[in-house]
Amino acid sequence: MNQAFLRETEAFLHEQIPLTRAMAVRVASWDGDELHLTAPLEPNHNHLGTAFGGSLSALATLAGYSLVWLLLGHRDAHIVIRGSSMRYRRPVRGELHAICRRPDQADWAAFSAQFARTGKAALSLQVSIIEDSVVCVEFAGDFVAFA
Amino acid sequence: MNQAFLRETEAFLHEQIPLTRAMAVRVASWDGDELHLTAPLEPNHNHLGTAFGGSLSALATLAGYSLVWLLLGHRDAHIVIRGSSMRYRRPVRGELHAICRRPDQADWAAFSAQFARTGKAALSLQVSIIEDSVVCVEFAGDFVAFA
Repeated sequence: MNQAFLRETEAFLHEQIPLTRAMAVRVASWDGDELHLTAPLEPNHNHLGTAFGGSLSALATLAGYSLVWLLLGHRDAHIVIRGSSMRYRRPVRGELHAICRRPDQADWAAFSAQFARTGKAALSLQVSIIEDSVVCVEFAGDFVAFA
Repeated sequence: MNQAFLRETEAFLHEQIPLTRAMAVRVASWDGDELHLTAPLEPNHNHLGTAFGGSLSALATLAGYSLVWLLLGHRDAHIVIRGSSMRYRRPVRGELHAICRRPDQADWAAFSAQFARTGKAALSLQVSIIEDSVVCVEFAGDFVAFA
C-alpha cells in the first residue's frame, strides 16, 4: 500500500481514538495480508523502562480492530471486541511492533458471507508483538463487526 | 486512605508510566481491601464514542499492578504481568471505573511467604470495570513480583 494510504489510515485512528495519538501509533505497513503497527517506547514505557503492559494490550487490540476495518474496506462498519487474552513472554525494550495477519481464507470467507447475509459477524484474530524477530507478546482477540 | 496518599500514588503512576497521564488516570480510593481507579471518557474513547478496548485493558492492567504495589507496601519491588484475559460484556459509555479487590487471605499469605522466602512470587488478580453498578468488563491477570 502506498504511503498516502498508510498516513490517512493513521490519521483516521488518531482522530477517532485519541489514545492512539498519545501512544504515537504509526501504521508502518499493510500489504493486504499483514498489518504492522508501531509505537515508540518513550510515551509507552513502564516503571521498569520497558513497554507498559497496558500499551502492549492497547496496541494489539488496535491492530485487530484495524485489520478488520482494512479487510472490510469501509469504515462505517461498527467493530467491537468481545474478548481477548494476552501472554507476555518477555519484556519489550525498544519500539513496540504489532503484527496482525489476515485470517486464513476459509475463516475470512465464512466471516464475509455471514456479514453480507446478516450484517453481523465474528472473527478471531491473533496479534504478535515482536522485537528483533522474537515474539515477546501473543494476543488473541474475538472481534464482532456490525454493518 | 487520606487524599494526600492517593494523590501521591497517582503522581507516582503518572511519572513512571506516561500513558497513565495521557489517560488522565486517577486513584479514586484505596481502603486496604479495594482499589478504585478512574479515567475520564474524553481521552479514552473509541470511534463509537464509548471506551476504547485498549484503554479498558490498560486501566485494568494498571489496577492489578497498583494493587500489588500497595499491598507490598514498597515500590522497589519489580512487578510484571505474565498473562491476562478480558471479557467485554457491554460498552462503557461514561467515565471508566476499575475496581480491584485484594486476593483472599490464603492466596495473599501464600504469595507473601513465597516473596519473603525467595524474592519472587506470582499472584492472580481480578479487576472489574463497572458502570452504574453493572460489570461491563471482566479482567483476570497473573502478576509476578521480584524483590
